[in-house]
This record gives sequence, structure tokens and C-alpha cells, in this order.
Amino acid sequence: MTKSVTTCAGLKRYLRRARRPGRTIGLVPTMGALHEGHLSLVRRSVAENDRTIVSIFVNPTQFSPGEDLARYPRPLARDLAACRRARVNVVFIPTPEEMYPQGFTTHLEVDRLSKLLCGRSRPTHFRGVTTVCTKLFGLCEPDRAYFGEKDYQQLVIIRRMVADLDMNVEIVACPEVREPDGLAMSSRNRYLTAEERREAPALYRSLVEAKRLVEEEGTTAVRDVTRAVRKLIRTAQGARIDYVSVVHPDTLEAIDVITGEAVVAVAVYLGKARLIDNMKVKARKKT
Amino acid sequence: MTKSVTTCAGLKRYLRRARRPGRTIGLVPTMGALHEGHLSLVRRSVAENDRTIVSIFVNPTQFSPGEDLARYPRPLARDLAACRRARVNVVFIPTPEEMYPQGFTTHLEVDRLSKLLCGRSRPTHFRGVTTVCTKLFGLCEPDRAYFGEKDYQQLVIIRRMVADLDMNVEIVACPEVREPDGLAMSSRNRYLTAEERREAPALYRSLVEAKRLVEEEGTTAVRDVTRAVRKLIRTAQGARIDYVSVVHPDTLEAIDVITGEAVVAVAVYLGKARLIDNMKVKARKKT
Repeated sequence: MTKSVTTCAGLKRYLRRARRPGRTIGLVPTMGALHEGHLSLVRRSVAENDRTIVSIFVNPTQFSPGEDLARYPRPLARDLAACRRARVNVVFIPTPEEMYPQGFTTHLEVDRLSKLLCGRSRPTHFRGVTTVCTKLFGLCEPDRAYFGEKDYQQLVIIRRMVADLDMNVEIVACPEVREPDGLAMSSRNRYLTAEERREAPALYRSLVEAKRLVEEEGTTAVRDVTRAVRKLIRTAQGARIDYVSVVHPDTLEAIDVITGEAVVAVAVYLGKARLIDNMKVKARKKT
Repeated sequence: MTKSVTTCAGLKRYLRRARRPGRTIGLVPTMGALHEGHLSLVRRSVAENDRTIVSIFVNPTQFSPGEDLARYPRPLARDLAACRRARVNVVFIPTPEEMYPQGFTTHLEVDRLSKLLCGRSRPTHFRGVTTVCTKLFGLCEPDRAYFGEKDYQQLVIIRRMVADLDMNVEIVACPEVREPDGLAMSSRNRYLTAEERREAPALYRSLVEAKRLVEEEGTTAVRDVTRAVRKLIRTAQGARIDYVSVVHPDTLEAIDVITGEAVVAVAVYLGKARLIDNMKVKARKKT
């Protein structure tokens, strides 16, 4: 049976009863509008833990003014049905007032990492993410929490936060889930018109080309890689590039020459959507 | 037997063995140079919990440049002996490198509250305090953590942080401990020369006068209270007032008229020391 809980007190009450020595709890933090990417996290948590909590909270503090907070999709009935089918134990659906009651004034930030990549165009985004995740960790005290590699920067930031503050939770990363044509699944894909949707897989193709250049052609100069990526993204009509970056997998610092592992990360505005995607690449061993 | 632990891994190892269902853990975070104020916290934790951890860490991030980080007293052998006598289970004495290893980049701040009172002259102080306490809470996962009411603003900020982020720890406040002449115990009192030490109880006398004015004379105008407090502090030769404030006990916002409970808080430079003290006052019921 899947239980819906809307208050922090209700969630804590459930957990007081549910928690037992040796019983593990998995948490999947989401903003709802669940797609196969989310569901892969949910299924993994259900498989790995005795109890799974899915939080559905469109967190206002991770949206900047002018972003899509108001029109962010909230198909709650469908989300609940999906959680029920996946045998989730608790769906936690708080209101903003429940999460941030009168007088709330605390924030948590992973300083350097939150200013790079998406942090440039969304300067307060990751502060919102880390603060809400810390609160969810405080509420649920999960053994494991599940995050998708699609939001790669978020994953790195959460890992850094957990390590820095010795939070007692294992962060489990799950691979990106893609549509048959390669487009990374995202709740924001539904902002795309049919036409834009047809153009969107250019992001994926550009990353595949980056991987080919590095791993098959042996390209090491980041400039050459990003030039090729940009060119392929521009084949998508109406695409406006926010960034194309090749970064160190842990520090997220931009690199000039690919010598080991790196992450190619892109952010692109397409119609009303801002799409992000990334792919790990690994330099060929010198022969 | 009191165990000394210097690494986070060692502390976690100890706790993995020590933690049992139903067994409670108390944490007393300190910067060492333990005096009777600290020891009252320690004794209360030992009385209330099955295991007590005292951390001794002169946390560099809560000092501003130019403050007393380098000369802050570190009488470690004496501190350890005091913990042993109090039957503390573990004294955690990490180095700054152990707490903030290469790459550490996370901070946590209680926004509004950390900018008032002491936050005006020490703008990064409370950010350092909340970040290190969150890390200590993460490491120890204590059932209770003990803080002195002498650092009243710190206590309010920690409570706010724990409530905002639903941290699963009970914050226990312990009353100020004073010398026979009223001076609040503080590790920084040892910066005072013999002469300054004789002048220092003026802080306490000024707070007692504030309490008398409010509770016996029925004074409600904050201006009248602070004028009397300032006058009494100035009787101490060499005293330089940082602030004299009357604030709401929870929001720490300055008030103009005392109608219910309020806190009179003072910070005074005396010689090489910056001394703080505070006292709760309660308006007389109107008759």
C-alpha cells in the first residue's frame, strides 16, 4: 500500500513506526511529473531498501524569478499512480508553506561548485536544491538517496555536501534515461512544441559526436570538441546555446585538454524549455 | 574510561560500535579551554545520556581576520583531565585539516539572525558556527546537543537551523555560569589583565540594573533601559561598547517597548577581550 503524506509531522510519525534496526530507508527526491528517468530511481530504491519514500515537491527556492515555477507540470494523480505501481511506501507531498513555514531563514550552499555551469545562468538554483535536500534528509534520515546522472552538476554538488558535512546517507547515482531518439528524459521536455521536440535530439547527437571525437579519433583539445558540439546543436532550429563545457568530473572546473575522464555538459534554450544533457568521455591511452 | 579521538573516521568507528537501540548520545561542542560553564553542559549531558561526546575544536571559520584565532587558549591536557573527571566517553579533537580537508566548500547559514547583534561586527562568525555544528551533528548523530545561554544568539541560531532543516537532534540550553562577582564565565576572560578583570563585572551589574528597571520599576521604554546599561558599563575603565540591545527572545529583532519577554544583550571590548553577556527580562503585568 502506498501512503500519501502532506505534513512533516505526518512523515516523522510514519517513520517513527517504520524505522527498525536493520531496516533500510531509501529516499527519491523529485519535483513530480515523473517520467521513466525518475521511475528508474524509484525502482532501484524499492529494490535496494526495505522502505522507499518518494518526495514530490516543486521547490520554489530552486527557481529564479522569471523561470517556470508557475507553469511547472504538476500531474499529481498520475504521479501517485506511478508510485503505487512501483510499490513505493510513502509519497511525501508537502506544500511550500509546510516546507518553509513563517520564519524559515536557513540556507546551505556548496560554494564553488554551485557557481559553475548552470550556476552561471541560475545563480540561486543549487542553493535551493541543497537546502531542500538537507531538509528532506533531516526529515527522512534515509540510508540511501537516489539522484539521476542527467542532472550531473546537482549530483556532484549533493555528493560534495554530504562528504563535507559528514551526512550519514549514501548517494546513489543512476544513469540517464533517454527517449528512443536519444533525448534525455526531463519533465521540461513537455514544454516543447512538436516541431521543437523533433529538433531536440541534436543535443544528444552532439554529445555522441564529442564522445566519438575523444574516444575514437583521439581528440584531446577541448576547443575542437566544443566546436563540433556547438555546430551540431546549431543544426536544431531555434536552439540557443547557454553553455557547452568540458569539465573535470569532480571539481566541475573547465579543462583545456582531455587527459583522463571528463564530462561534456550542455545547456540549450529551445522554445520555452531550457534543456540540459551531459556525457562522460575518457581520453584514449597514449600508445 | 575517556577516549580521545582525532579523526572523523575514528569517531564514526567508535559510534558504530557504541550506538545501540535505546542508547542515547549527547554532544557538547566546545572550543576547549573548558571552564565551569562548559562543565555544566558536560555534566548535564553525562547525566542525561548513555554516551557523551565532547568536541574540542578551535574552529577557524568562526574567527574573522584580525581576531584571536592564533592566541585562543588551547590548554589541552587540562581539558582532557576535566573531561575524564566528568566521565565523558569520547573527546573529539580534530585538526582543521581533518574537519576541512582539501576541496571542502560547503557552508550553512541562518540568514537573518546571523546578521544581528554580534553578526554586525562579526559578519562570518555564525556561518562558521552553524557549518561546523552541522558537520558535528552529521558525524555524531547525537540525540541531544548542549549549548550555553551565555552565547544566546548562537543558541537561537542553532535552534532555528535545527527547526528549519528538521535536524533530528534536541537542542538543550543550559543557564549561564558566573564567577562570584557576576562575570559570566568565558574562555576569553583570561585575556583580561588583573585590572581589567576587576572592571569586567560592570557588564553583569548593568544587566542586573536593566532587570531591576523592567521588573521592579516597571520601565518599558527600551531607550531608558539601554541608557542605564550603557552608563553602568562605562563605569568600567577602558570599556568600549560594541552594542547594548534589547531584543525579542526568538527573532532577535530590536524592540522599542518591552511588553513581554525580552533579552538585554551586551558586547563590550575590554583590553584584548571582547566580552558578551545577556539577561532575560520580563515586563510587569499591567495592573
